[in-house]
Amino acid sequence: MEKPSLPKGTRDFGPSTMAKRQFILDTIRQVFQKFGFLPLETPAMENLSTLTGKYGEEGDQLLFKILNSGDFLKEVDPAKLESRNSKSITPDIAEKGLRYDLTVPFARFVVMNRHEITLPFKRFQIQPVWRADRPQKGRYREFFQCDADVVGTDSLVCEAEIIFMIKEVMSRLGVIDYTIKINHRRILNGIAEAIQAMGKESELFVAIDKLDKIGVENVKKELSEKGFNPSQLDTLFQVLSIQGLNSDKIESLNNSLSASNSGIKGLREIQHVFDFLKQYGESDEHVELDLALARGLSYYTGCIFEVKINSVSIGSVSGGGRYDNLTQAFGAKERLSGVGISFGIDRIYDAMEELNLFSPQALLSSKVLICHFDEGTFNHGLHVLASLRKSGIASEIYPEVAKLKKQLEYGSKKRIEHAIVIGEEEMKSGIFTIKNLINGEQTRLPLETIIQQLSN
Amino acid sequence: MEKPSLPKGTRDFGPSTMAKRQFILDTIRQVFQKFGFLPLETPAMENLSTLTGKYGEEGDQLLFKILNSGDFLKEVDPAKLESRNSKSITPDIAEKGLRYDLTVPFARFVVMNRHEITLPFKRFQIQPVWRADRPQKGRYREFFQCDADVVGTDSLVCEAEIIFMIKEVMSRLGVIDYTIKINHRRILNGIAEAIQAMGKESELFVAIDKLDKIGVENVKKELSEKGFNPSQLDTLFQVLSIQGLNSDKIESLNNSLSASNSGIKGLREIQHVFDFLKQYGESDEHVELDLALARGLSYYTGCIFEVKINSVSIGSVSGGGRYDNLTQAFGAKERLSGVGISFGIDRIYDAMEELNLFSPQALLSSKVLICHFDEGTFNHGLHVLASLRKSGIASEIYPEVAKLKKQLEYGSKKRIEHAIVIGEEEMKSGIFTIKNLINGEQTRLPLETIIQQLSN
Repeated sequence: MEKPSLPKGTRDFGPSTMAKRQFILDTIRQVFQKFGFLPLETPAMENLSTLTGKYGEEGDQLLFKILNSGDFLKEVDPAKLESRNSKSITPDIAEKGLRYDLTVPFARFVVMNRHEITLPFKRFQIQPVWRADRPQKGRYREFFQCDADVVGTDSLVCEAEIIFMIKEVMSRLGVIDYTIKINHRRILNGIAEAIQAMGKESELFVAIDKLDKIGVENVKKELSEKGFNPSQLDTLFQVLSIQGLNSDKIESLNNSLSASNSGIKGLREIQHVFDFLKQYGESDEHVELDLALARGLSYYTGCIFEVKINSVSIGSVSGGGRYDNLTQAFGAKERLSGVGISFGIDRIYDAMEELNLFSPQALLSSKVLICHFDEGTFNHGLHVLASLRKSGIASEIYPEVAKLKKQLEYGSKKRIEHAIVIGEEEMKSGIFTIKNLINGEQTRLPLETIIQQLSN
Repeated sequence: MEKPSLPKGTRDFGPSTMAKRQFILDTIRQVFQKFGFLPLETPAMENLSTLTGKYGEEGDQLLFKILNSGDFLKEVDPAKLESRNSKSITPDIAEKGLRYDLTVPFARFVVMNRHEITLPFKRFQIQPVWRADRPQKGRYREFFQCDADVVGTDSLVCEAEIIFMIKEVMSRLGVIDYTIKINHRRILNGIAEAIQAMGKESELFVAIDKLDKIGVENVKKELSEKGFNPSQLDTLFQVLSIQGLNSDKIESLNNSLSASNSGIKGLREIQHVFDFLKQYGESDEHVELDLALARGLSYYTGCIFEVKINSVSIGSVSGGGRYDNLTQAFGAKERLSGVGISFGIDRIYDAMEELNLFSPQALLSSKVLICHFDEGTFNHGLHVLASLRKSGIASEIYPEVAKLKKQLEYGSKKRIEHAIVIGEEEMKSGIFTIKNLINGEQTRLPLETIIQQLSN
């Protein structure tokens, strides 16, 4: 028989990984709830009509599609089958796909439930998504997204709230050295205007988004090839090279982009977000206006964000922005502006491992293992077990009569903190030996005292 | 544009549903952890070779299959395509499927990680599963299972622990009237022996499993049609009609099945489980030896369980049992016995709704909404917001300048408990009005006092 295996790009999460992932997920969930976001979950499967056309052509190709049940070939045009054109047959044999992100299902939910929802609607959603991408380091075919979005208000305080949430998440996770990059689509449009590259925004943004990875010279080269002339490039890199405090950058840009209505509006909004930070009593530490931040997804229309944990070789761990027209893609007549942030917990996990930020005991084990020698002490152990659990102490009994050494090894491997060993004498006296499986210390105490100590 | 919709048999879970579901999930997770089970998660997608052949032929047909990426028709034999036989083409165009339950992925995990695992291995797993079943009341195409299994020990204390866990889950959920049905595959085999129906066990078990639903007469009819004679049926229903305490039933069965080794062994094991209950200090209240319990899945070999919430029209909310050979299905040479329980949280949810067991305020909202009148009071509100959150109080600010009535309505609809209203006077004095949005009461207090009160 063939050995069982996992599909490419997917992973099992065993107990020690789960404990660490759970810590990250719980942290993010707690912060979302503290900020007034309510939970939502949507199905893993969506109709392909919901998913297709929202992520660009490349995204469409990365959708996992689900084969229709039953005799799925029955209705397929024979001529089509004969042509063996996989792409043209797909819509006939697959109606559903696995969700690709959480933003599109959220927009679909809002449109379908528009009349039951109180606006502004603040929701968070923590669920896996699937992409048929080529697997590589830090890129998986199944991974979790943790999203928080507000829909139904233009207020820029929502952008400021996103920054507060990122700061609180990072601080709770123990990440100290990170940068929240912020930019605005209108500033980017302003730059395009300033160098007279209107109509070529997308080539421009795609190229400058790579500055971090491939450097100035390569970006210049790419833009030249795309038809940008040297004078355009000069002006562009003059603008992009502005350094200094966020306030200095904004001041300088107010000059460079003064001719662009779009640019000035974007700058004013960014300024507003920084003002909210101040009102809240929060500095702009960790926050950096980064003109090279463009973000791939085409639906963003306002502020955009990305979070990078510095000193680790991992891409951004979080990203988001404001989008104005997403619900309209589902036929909603009213314009509902939304803004959101998405944390990628797989990358946060990898970064935290690299930075050694997980506590070494992180395993969601029980606190006490009850050990015994024979049927009699085992039965008495059950009694002790019941008392421990009644006091809320997570505990277990080694389920078989076995050598004490084997039982203690089981406890150590499972990183259970304490073992209570029950022998004949303990049964009679009611005084039990409790052994700390981490440092080896042991003491003899009455059960009530043990329970009291462990309950604290 | 077409209105967006959900795939058949799938559901969105909005905030109020999520709060209740989360309560059930957290309860079950906490109990699992208290009993020493460690978390595991496996991918949504498994290779079809892992899933196929584990759930019977009907199960195989209910698997959701994922279309291979790229040019999936390229390698398909043209003759096969021409035959338009969906079933025979499926393996060529779909290599992966969505998981159908959590037990088979768990067995696959154990076999793949046999050398890293400490036996006995106690794991819990809370994840959705998918079945292409016909949707109907209480039956969905995507639903959550919450499983706890121990693998690597024959000890019957594990069966007793399952009963303790069910009792603790039910008690924490507030469910009072429920029955844990228990039976043993060997007792069923013993009954088959006693009526000389060896070789026809599966017809027999399938029929008596329906007693609850279709009644004695219809079961008799079904068995007659399957070739059981009147004398067999008489003996069968004599055995099945045994009433009384569990101990009475066991005693009576010890007589009726005395000629069957299998039957006697099953009875001894059941007796052993009841003995463990007593040792633990737990009565057999809620536990009922039910000879008509058979359970469909073919992999069970020992004790089997099912939990029914009485007085609601919903099938079993939990089920499980012992299986001896599941890892061998994945080529493991060693025999690893396992026993587990699965809670179906969708049905528990429906039952709790019917019994009105959810607290009316169950919504994971923030505790405080900050209301304001204009830009100045809004900005001051941000400052108050920061102070509340610093003390760990979940809170939010209404993000736009709007009429107070609108702001308070937003708070009420979101079931936020308190509103702090900030006007000019409050800004100056530092004394704020805090309004209880549930009962309408309001008081004026300094911010520090408000924070102190809300922190408790």
